[in-house]
Amino acid sequence: MTHNGILFVISGPSGVGKGTLREALLKSTPNLIDSISVTTRPARIGERDGREYFFMDRDKFENLIKQEEFLEWAQVYSNLYGTPKQFVQENLDKGLDVLLEIDIQGAMQVKAKKPDGVFIFIAPPNVEELANRLINRGKDSQDSIVERLKACYDEMEFMREYDYLVINDNISEAIKNLEAIIIAERCKINKDKE
Amino acid sequence: MTHNGILFVISGPSGVGKGTLREALLKSTPNLIDSISVTTRPARIGERDGREYFFMDRDKFENLIKQEEFLEWAQVYSNLYGTPKQFVQENLDKGLDVLLEIDIQGAMQVKAKKPDGVFIFIAPPNVEELANRLINRGKDSQDSIVERLKACYDEMEFMREYDYLVINDNISEAIKNLEAIIIAERCKINKDKE
Repeated sequence: MTHNGILFVISGPSGVGKGTLREALLKSTPNLIDSISVTTRPARIGERDGREYFFMDRDKFENLIKQEEFLEWAQVYSNLYGTPKQFVQENLDKGLDVLLEIDIQGAMQVKAKKPDGVFIFIAPPNVEELANRLINRGKDSQDSIVERLKACYDEMEFMREYDYLVINDNISEAIKNLEAIIIAERCKINKDKE
Repeated sequence: MTHNGILFVISGPSGVGKGTLREALLKSTPNLIDSISVTTRPARIGERDGREYFFMDRDKFENLIKQEEFLEWAQVYSNLYGTPKQFVQENLDKGLDVLLEIDIQGAMQVKAKKPDGVFIFIAPPNVEELANRLINRGKDSQDSIVERLKACYDEMEFMREYDYLVINDNISEAIKNLEAIIIAERCKINKDKE
């Protein structure tokens, strides 16, 4: 029996802890490859092309957009970021699963192009808890926190577009649930192929 | 968020180790209730009504068949055995998951009546391995083993009717996969309800 690679997308409101969950999952799960984004922002000291990001100038990036070579892309401030289709597909073809951690808008773009991916919504236990996390990490101004909480309410509406819900209440519990989803999806009988 | 109970059906060829997996799962998984069958065979010493089985005379059993009160039923030698719909449904309504371990013919009957159940096919690593298990457990004559192996080939055809495949190669690995399937199904976003 050959196992075809699965694209796992973990996504959810800003500040929900997606990044921490992603790192833990990559460490604990065999045959799970981190999706590497392309960016036009310059590499920082210590970053290596093809490890943190694929670094690329704007012209080349825009060319890839035209060629529909991105599963999703977005402009953040003055830089472009995108998920290269080819990198993901090459790993899937090798039978490796790919993990993509991304915001909700990005996930919805990916879903349009790869509806056979497994879409996992990470939710905060409740909005107060999310507010506390944003305050405690100390990266955000009060205005930006209010803004994010409003966005969070809006974003919860997208939950129905996802396959699974994992509430990031207790981090080890959330990781256990994510690991279980990956294992279960690997056990699924693919009805399309029969 | 209320969690509705899920019916998990583990099924597969005879001798594949379903019973052992069922017992291990019931021990390790919280909120998972064993489905209790109804039978017309007399209770043995030490058996208690409502624990091993619901014991019932043949008239009453046949009445329940007419009232469509079984998810499945079958005659084994001179006795009738069946899965009572009410017991399963009452637990599901309470938000408890129910585990039903059953042969393939039974599972197909259950699927017709409860297509929203989660159907898990337990497969032997290969047919030789299954033959060895049947021989080693020493319960079966050589003829009956040959018969069972033939049946196993036929039964593998039913795999496509199931949602998940768990290969019972290594028992602790199989249990881990089954536990993961239960956890993942509990995280699923139910699209029907939205």
